[in-house]
Amino acid sequence: MKPAGAEDLACLSASDLAPRLRERTLRVVDVAEACLARIAARDEEVRAWSYLRPEQVRAEARRLDAAEVRGPLHGIPVGIKDVILTKDMPTQYNSPFYDNFAPAIDAACVATLRAAGALIFGKCDTVEFAAMGRRARTRNPHDLARTPGGSSSGSAAAVADLQVPLALGTQTGGSAIRPASFCGIYAMKPTWNAVSREGLKMYSASLDTLAWYGRCVGDLALVADVFALEDAEARALPPLQQLRIGLCPTPAWPQADAATVDAMASASTALTGFGVTLEEIVLPPLFDDILAVHDTIMIGEGVGAFLSEFRLFGEAIAPEFRRRLHDDNRYSRADLVRAYDIAAQCRVLFEQIAAPFDAILTPSSAGEATLGLASTGSANFNRMWTLLHAPCINIPVARPAGALPLGLTLAGPRYADRHLLAVAERLAPVIGADRSIAFPEARPADRRRDERQTG
Amino acid sequence: MKPAGAEDLACLSASDLAPRLRERTLRVVDVAEACLARIAARDEEVRAWSYLRPEQVRAEARRLDAAEVRGPLHGIPVGIKDVILTKDMPTQYNSPFYDNFAPAIDAACVATLRAAGALIFGKCDTVEFAAMGRRARTRNPHDLARTPGGSSSGSAAAVADLQVPLALGTQTGGSAIRPASFCGIYAMKPTWNAVSREGLKMYSASLDTLAWYGRCVGDLALVADVFALEDAEARALPPLQQLRIGLCPTPAWPQADAATVDAMASASTALTGFGVTLEEIVLPPLFDDILAVHDTIMIGEGVGAFLSEFRLFGEAIAPEFRRRLHDDNRYSRADLVRAYDIAAQCRVLFEQIAAPFDAILTPSSAGEATLGLASTGSANFNRMWTLLHAPCINIPVARPAGALPLGLTLAGPRYADRHLLAVAERLAPVIGADRSIAFPEARPADRRRDERQTG
Repeated sequence: MKPAGAEDLACLSASDLAPRLRERTLRVVDVAEACLARIAARDEEVRAWSYLRPEQVRAEARRLDAAEVRGPLHGIPVGIKDVILTKDMPTQYNSPFYDNFAPAIDAACVATLRAAGALIFGKCDTVEFAAMGRRARTRNPHDLARTPGGSSSGSAAAVADLQVPLALGTQTGGSAIRPASFCGIYAMKPTWNAVSREGLKMYSASLDTLAWYGRCVGDLALVADVFALEDAEARALPPLQQLRIGLCPTPAWPQADAATVDAMASASTALTGFGVTLEEIVLPPLFDDILAVHDTIMIGEGVGAFLSEFRLFGEAIAPEFRRRLHDDNRYSRADLVRAYDIAAQCRVLFEQIAAPFDAILTPSSAGEATLGLASTGSANFNRMWTLLHAPCINIPVARPAGALPLGLTLAGPRYADRHLLAVAERLAPVIGADRSIAFPEARPADRRRDERQTG
Repeated sequence: MKPAGAEDLACLSASDLAPRLRERTLRVVDVAEACLARIAARDEEVRAWSYLRPEQVRAEARRLDAAEVRGPLHGIPVGIKDVILTKDMPTQYNSPFYDNFAPAIDAACVATLRAAGALIFGKCDTVEFAAMGRRARTRNPHDLARTPGGSSSGSAAAVADLQVPLALGTQTGGSAIRPASFCGIYAMKPTWNAVSREGLKMYSASLDTLAWYGRCVGDLALVADVFALEDAEARALPPLQQLRIGLCPTPAWPQADAATVDAMASASTALTGFGVTLEEIVLPPLFDDILAVHDTIMIGEGVGAFLSEFRLFGEAIAPEFRRRLHDDNRYSRADLVRAYDIAAQCRVLFEQIAAPFDAILTPSSAGEATLGLASTGSANFNRMWTLLHAPCINIPVARPAGALPLGLTLAGPRYADRHLLAVAERLAPVIGADRSIAFPEARPADRRRDERQTG
């Protein structure tokens, strides 16, 4: 067996790698070395990782090469957002209070990935507690002066920068889908609680959702298989020209910038060209305040989720954190209960509206990745979907030459995850970016911009 | 300072102990020794603990005696259900797969208790994963031939047997309130998610609720303070004769045995005698299938919660567990979504119905603790309240001489926890058991019955 070139292996998607690793035509150690080489070449600038020990990765790769049983993710490198517990690596939450915190326990999702043979590669940098406070040090691999989005900053950047084919993120507002849009990769946020959140840092129990990144729809489906996602109803996938797609600009639409407006328009044109039926969705008035409802639940639940941190670390907690989750206390428990009940109603209403469609097309972000690392961008185009518990898939869309990446979201009713993957597989070639956008090449040093110093 | 007798200290409630420990008129080590002595005398028979190291307890007690800062629970022994992570003790879930499993991490609730000065005493036995499978070895301290209820078996028995004044449990169906009824102690299951579940073994994210046991309403309130429970609205507590209590026998009422029927009747008579207004609540037809709705969510979510265990341990998993959460697969994801939406509607309806009342009075169990340890009793009187996310307080009620303990539940709308505590404080002297039932004395050996051998 001739080992493939290291650079080639790092460029392969998980779906490309999976059968070859399973059938032993490729060694796990070679894939691992390719990823490590890419990281060595690039990560001083991208800074995707909060913990990565090449020797540990190599030892685990050798163990997997020697293993008899080969699961569906055998030997595939997966980056883990650093708010998800891993038994053999620290989990530091990008919080000064958890330096080198390393409890010997796997989150349920990590245990499930391991049982499928995944090579748990390292921990990816995150906004503090996947909430607020300290930002990830990670930079956008497409433009180092820009944010990769957040809070799953390192996970998205690592996959976009060809450092690992898969990574786990989490989303409470727009923490998984927005970074995928900014970094030009595929992402799936499944139906709320379809994958166990045990062992994830909790922020908002009603919103927190595990998510994952890959380099094509097939990668997302591979992980969905491992997590045993199951649809509420088995729906046949019609041919392209019989697909019905609902367009939902969401109440955040006035915040969309020219890039996002153009992306929605271009995708619509492309889809119409292929005979797809498009129809604009009009949300009922109950949705007018949907972002406030989301905020009420996120902050209202966050107060309880971080109580132990406030009690343990008190005044040392970051001011932004203190203000939003402790001092302000601007939502009462009555507000929270009202928000729960409106959210529950909105879920039912949305699904009635979405029923005739194969998927809903909606922006993934207000625009391209913003400059600097102080802000990770706005989650306003993602928060409604998180609140609705709706599965979402980010597709990086075709852009004008030289433009930064941008994504659109396909969303669907709860537990339509599989159907959504099938629709995404069909639509990605129509609206999707070509690989030169989705897969950045290492650029010569003189083309790299310096990171803007941000507060 | 003359140390009080060991037996006395073990009999004291948390509310009795708290001010004395805080003001240093009592030493933590003396309280700890009293509890350890009680455990040494009794626990060979009661078997409440899955992990307890007297030397570890003594070292921690000495540390607390030396501490400058004194929190509201300073030095008060708390038993922790063994599905809740503790950084300095194993968490074994009563599962053969987790023997000596000891990750160095505290659940959020344990961290909060520690920050309040609590003496984390040991781990209390539980039904496997607080779900099903292996039963706790714990026996009911009032009658060793009977179950203490489950799944929080050890936590309830330890508090009832005067081994520790406080303990944490969890409830997904009736795992906290039913054991309190069977063991004759006070319990609080607060509003769903009012206390963080981070670090608890997850079974059903929409139902799992942290709960706690104490020896009086004041004990429950002390813990509620530490967890910063907050009501949706501040309601004045009217005098006893102006209280309005709704009676809700629940759709499980045909399963109530004579003891429970009598307890509801006796409590009603007593309350009426004090001038309390009672009114029977009629639940709308949507509630007819409420137990099926609960089961659909519990099992439907459990499938995902235990996916990693099924993947890791496969055929070795207990048959009952396998059947209900893997093989049967009797609920579809469509059933789950429907159940979510019905549950959300029921929450709104219940709260409209409950609005005119200060609390709802309802059974805590179908009857007294059942014989043997194979069954932990039926959760059918608790499951509706868990599904409604309603706060519940168990009050051990007055019983005929020689009878086993039995409890009734006060329930209320979401985030009425504080008001419910105030109502419970007022009603406990009217309907509550005297201390001779709530606080069993060690009985001579010849009065102990042998445990029935159960499968």
